Order: sequence, then structure tokens, then C-alpha cells
Amino acid sequence: MAINLTIPKMVFAIEGIEIGVTEAGIKKENRKDLTVFKLDEGTTVSGVFTKNLFCAAPVQIAKKHLLLGKPIRSLVINTGNANAGTGQNGLKNAQTICSSLGNLLKIEDCQVLPFSTGVVLEPLPVDKILNNLYKAVLKSDKNNWMEAAYGIMTTDTIPKIFSEQFTIDQKVFTITGISKGAGMIHPNMATMLGFIGTDIGIKQSLLDKIIKDLADKSFNRITIDGDTSTNDSFIIMATGKSKIKLESEHDSNYHIILDALAKAASDLAQKIVRDAEGATKFITLQVEKAASKEEALAIAYSVAKSPLVKTAFYASDPNIGRILVAIGYSNTNIPINKVKIWLNDLLIVENGELSKFYTEESGKKVMKQSEIVIKISLNNGYFAEKVYTCDLSHDYVTINSDYRS
Amino acid sequence: MAINLTIPKMVFAIEGIEIGVTEAGIKKENRKDLTVFKLDEGTTVSGVFTKNLFCAAPVQIAKKHLLLGKPIRSLVINTGNANAGTGQNGLKNAQTICSSLGNLLKIEDCQVLPFSTGVVLEPLPVDKILNNLYKAVLKSDKNNWMEAAYGIMTTDTIPKIFSEQFTIDQKVFTITGISKGAGMIHPNMATMLGFIGTDIGIKQSLLDKIIKDLADKSFNRITIDGDTSTNDSFIIMATGKSKIKLESEHDSNYHIILDALAKAASDLAQKIVRDAEGATKFITLQVEKAASKEEALAIAYSVAKSPLVKTAFYASDPNIGRILVAIGYSNTNIPINKVKIWLNDLLIVENGELSKFYTEESGKKVMKQSEIVIKISLNNGYFAEKVYTCDLSHDYVTINSDYRS
Repeated sequence: MAINLTIPKMVFAIEGIEIGVTEAGIKKENRKDLTVFKLDEGTTVSGVFTKNLFCAAPVQIAKKHLLLGKPIRSLVINTGNANAGTGQNGLKNAQTICSSLGNLLKIEDCQVLPFSTGVVLEPLPVDKILNNLYKAVLKSDKNNWMEAAYGIMTTDTIPKIFSEQFTIDQKVFTITGISKGAGMIHPNMATMLGFIGTDIGIKQSLLDKIIKDLADKSFNRITIDGDTSTNDSFIIMATGKSKIKLESEHDSNYHIILDALAKAASDLAQKIVRDAEGATKFITLQVEKAASKEEALAIAYSVAKSPLVKTAFYASDPNIGRILVAIGYSNTNIPINKVKIWLNDLLIVENGELSKFYTEESGKKVMKQSEIVIKISLNNGYFAEKVYTCDLSHDYVTINSDYRS
Repeated sequence: MAINLTIPKMVFAIEGIEIGVTEAGIKKENRKDLTVFKLDEGTTVSGVFTKNLFCAAPVQIAKKHLLLGKPIRSLVINTGNANAGTGQNGLKNAQTICSSLGNLLKIEDCQVLPFSTGVVLEPLPVDKILNNLYKAVLKSDKNNWMEAAYGIMTTDTIPKIFSEQFTIDQKVFTITGISKGAGMIHPNMATMLGFIGTDIGIKQSLLDKIIKDLADKSFNRITIDGDTSTNDSFIIMATGKSKIKLESEHDSNYHIILDALAKAASDLAQKIVRDAEGATKFITLQVEKAASKEEALAIAYSVAKSPLVKTAFYASDPNIGRILVAIGYSNTNIPINKVKIWLNDLLIVENGELSKFYTEESGKKVMKQSEIVIKISLNNGYFAEKVYTCDLSHDYVTINSDYRS
């Protein structure tokens, strides 16, 4: 049961992007497991990927193709198999898919980006993909974002989609995006994927810079169980079909557009946490007044990853000691007697000690909620960071100790 | 049910160390919760403590007293209350206990080291301790190590004790030690405590150096859930009553003695993992041929702390993908195509890929065992490290999401 995860009533198409979803029987029959994006000429594309050393074949190919610099005109995503830990054959297979799709679309193979998610250490059933690519191409339509949200799901329980229109100077622009994945769900590390499309035109070099900042406010700020998979990928496609163009950080529209994109990315990343199976609480770690970004992140992640903190949240137990301990081993040098902590609006720690006004009753009340913000003020500087996570439940163990079939 | 945790048939006294254990009713009545060590003149004492920024009052006092440099002649350990997160009052209370015991033993308060373990963020019932110290002193006897092992338990299910005699040049020396604690057991972060006594004479400066090396082979190499408490402490007491003296690293007996002490420390540290409640598997991470100690440790801890790896072990599932992924996000730059991994004697990964000879059947067989060594050879240098951990089970969540009473 996802935590307060909404599906937008209206999903807007993005001019210049068409999507087709089909069944290729990659792992299971009668399942939409193959998705193709077609991008009009003039679209700029940027991506950020997992830093895991064992990064999967599709990730290696996607990075290579982005570096080669030719305009990216297509994305292909399969579920059912991550094509990870598959060595040279895996790379060959990912390349073959790009060539085959390139032929169908009359573009070069280096203009295609491949993505895979699913079982690792098993060879990709590449023939099934090759035989069905044309179907996805034939079915492509600009109104298929919801289909795509379903098409990229593996063990997600609910499609994750964002879609909104914004106005600048009476000109409208649109952002629509989808995401999938939550590390907890499947024994084989459900990959995190995010795809955002917009009809704004964004210069390539600027987009390359923007996407890193966006990732650092969204997909790089979620943690479910601390594990990052071999296939994590986040892509932005800017088609330029609207009347709005972004050339540099000095454009008057820069901040409005960045905020809109950040809203999309953050929403899609948070939805991954909200759908983490077994999760009953959506937890925000908000660290403020840190001496540096690194200090803020170290504290936020220390608390967000602590099994003792996460099981306390599962129990709705305002166990303040565990939060303090997690801050204490964060590998920072913060002055602990300046620390202030709130659970939502409730002040629980002041000057590094239990707040004089704190009562167990008030703590219990806050902890019963499904959305909780742990705000930690370090009073040590001017930097702030946010990290999103969920609680640790019996279901997490159940799901992840189920023997792989 | 602890995993292969033995209690020695014979527990040897250490000449120069007497121990008394009594009931002070600190948290519960009729429970041995107050332990006093008396050390003869000539004993050298060294300690290493938690690096947690919120380190408890007793830890702050113990560190201060060790730094002051007067000979340490007594230790006092209470369970039931950690005296952590207790601010200035907590420090005052810990100091008062040292003064009171100092008076009883006719030593200065800075010659006493205090230790506490139990509930945090609650004031220490210091009167109960002060009123019962004399009982512990009266009952002190050199044959009370087993009593002490019980006396320091909080939610441990079994006393942890090591005792062995060694011979050098037909001269006998003795090492006896006790430990307690396993992060998983109690919602309030059961502290890790270790106390080792020996009748060897060890020069103070040498002991100060030795204890750090020993901690780095033992207590600093275990992880149950990654959380380190506010009270973790490890103490060595060398009475000098045997005929064997250690003056410097160049003594011919240095390595024999160091190995013996390492055996004791390692045994006591591993026992903490073996008694981690809910644990069903004792797991050793053995990383070899790393480019540096830091690289070896980063890899070992990454795997040892991964919830996905630990739940797989709980399921007896040879999920190799999860081990590779954990290595992959270890924040190192190892050449992954050189990685070799064994589960006990079974080679599972070679050249960064699944071993050609690996079968699921053989993997399942190994994973059914309760003692498993994950050996990871990086082929990247000459450094090696070992880390000990256990699996992640339903019981972990149950125990740690029980509302505090």
C-alpha cells in the first residue's frame, strides 16, 4: 500500500516525444515489457547514471552514446532482465538492440539509449526484444506516457507519473515524467529509472549541467535500504517545441524553469520511496545550518539509513535516543550542544539534549502519522539538504528473504 | 539462540584483579547490575571508546581519567541505565560514583573508570549505586570473572567470556576477558563493552599502542546493524604479576603475546555477533589483495552492512548479484574484472563475473550452513581485512520495533 502516492488526473503529451509500449515475453508472457521513445530532431537529451562499479551493459552503452555527442533520437527500455553481470555478451546484446532500433527508425545506433531492469546475472533474451521492437515503434503516440509508466514497472505496485503545465509571460510549457523502482521490492534490486520530457528547448551544455543539480535534489536524495543498483538511470529530454528556450543560467526564465523541473524530479523520486513495498511511513530528513553540503548530507544519510531509527518509525515509537545516536556516528564534527531536532512541529531536542517541554504523549502523537519530517538544525553554518526515506518493516525482510524463483 | 557460542570449561583468575558483583536495583530488582573491579598496584590500564559524538557521561569521565595519567586501580560498571544524553547532571553523577568508590578503596577518584549500559536519555539512579558499592567491594574475589560476565549483561542471552593460558619459555601467562552487547537486542542500543585482564606486565605507552591495534582486529571489526552506541568501551588491564614483562615492540615475546591478546579480543568481539538476537548466521567478510587498508575495509563493510545481502543470508539464498552490487557501491575504484569471490570453499565469482563452474545447487548447499566466509580477492594490492556480521531477520525488526516500556 503506497503512502499518499497520487496519480495526476491529467497527463499532458510533450510535443516532439512519441512512446510505444508492447509485449515481448521477456520474462513473463502477456506483460507490457518493452517501451520505445521516439524523439523529434532538435531534442536535447541528458542523463545521469548509477556510480555502481558493476554498472550494467545498457548503462555502459547509454553513457557511451551520450558521450559520442550525436543527437539522441530514441530510448528503448525493457523489463524482466537487467542485462547486468553479463560481461561481453551483455554489451553485444545491448548494442544489437540499438542497431536494430536504429535501422527501424533510420538513425544511427549511437543515437539510441538502451535501458534494462529486472533479473541480474542472466543473459538477456535479446531475440524476443529484437522481434518485437517494430510493434513498439508502430504503436508510438504522443499520448502514451501513462502506458509507459506501466510499461517500465517491475515490482512497483503503482505507476509513477508527473505531469504539469506552467506559464511564463503567458507562454505555456509542459513537463511530464515517469519513474519506477524501489530497492526493497524484489530480491534482484529493482532498478531506479526516471524519464522526464519537456517541450522547452534547452541548450545541450546547459542541460548537462542542470540534470546533475536536479538529480542532487531528487533521485540522488532517496534511500530505501542504502543499496544502489547496477542500472539506475535518470534522463531528461527537452524537445524545444514550445516557444520557450533556455540558453544559459542568466536567462530571466532560468529559475522558474529549474524550479518546475525540480518539482517534477523531486515528485518522481519521492514516489519511488512512497511505493517502497512494506513501507508505512514516508520520512523526510531535513538538515539545516550545516557547515557544508557534505556535513548536511552525512547527517541526513546517517539517520536515514539507520536500521534502529527505521524500525522505531515502523513501531511509531518516538525513540529519540536512536536519532541522536545516528547523528553521533555520522563521521562529522558538529558541536552537539547546538543541535535542535523537530518531529514535524514538535521540538524534541534542544542544545543537544531532550527538550524540556517534550512529552512522550506528544511524541507518540506525531509518530502515528504516515508523513514525518525529522528536521535537524545544526547551528553550524548555512547549508541545508533533504533526504527521503521510509521505515523498515517485517515486510522488507519477508520480501527480500523470499528465495529467488 | 546464539550461533556456536562456547563458554570455556575453565575460567582462570588473573593475579592482581579482583571482581565483586552485586544487586543495586538500578532498573530491576533482584538483578546483578553493579560490578566493581579492583586492580593491584603496578597494573597498567588502557582503553578505547566509542567515537559517537554523543558519547555518554561515563565515557567522557573514563577518557578524562585515563588522560590524567594516575594509575587506574578500579573499574565500576552498572547496567540498567547508560547515563547517556544526560547532560551536566549525568557527568556529575558519574563523577560522584568515582569519588565514592575512591573513598571506599582509598584511592583518588581519577583512579576509577566508570562504565554504564542500558536505557538512554534517563537520569542515572545514582543513589542506588552509591548505596551498594560497598557490597560489591566486600564480595570481590579473583575468581569472579564468570560472575562479572553475567553482571554486565543487559539483553545478551548468554555470557561472553574468554580464558586461556599460554606458555613462553616454560613460563605461563594468562588472559581472561568478558564482553557484552549486540546492537540488535534492545531498542535502546545495547552497548558494546569488553574487558580483558592479563598477568603479563606491559609498559603503559606500549599498552596504549597495542590496544588500538587489537581493537582494529576485533571490536572495531564487527557490525550488526551499523549502529554504534554512545557507550562502547574496550579496556585492557595488565597486572604484571606473572614473570613475563613486555617493554617494547622489539621484545622477542612481542608477537606471541600480541597474538594471544588478539585471540582473546577477537573471540570476545565475535561472541557479540554470535549472540545478536535473531541472528541465524555468523558471517565473515574476508577481503584480500586490496590496494590499501581503507579499500579493504570499504569493501568489507559495504557488503557486511547491506540489508539486501543480509536478508539473502537469512533466506539461505546464494544471491550473488546482491554481493556484487554491494561491492559495486563501496565508494572504491577497484578493477571489477579482477574480482574473485568464494562462499566458504566455493568459487562463485571470477574475473568479475559468475564463475563458469558455479551451480545453484552448490551455492544453496553452502548457504544452509550457519558459519559462512565471504572471501573477496581484489587482486589489486597486498592489504587484507576481516569484518564480522550476521544476517538480518524478522526477529531483528520485531525486537527493535517493540515499543519501549
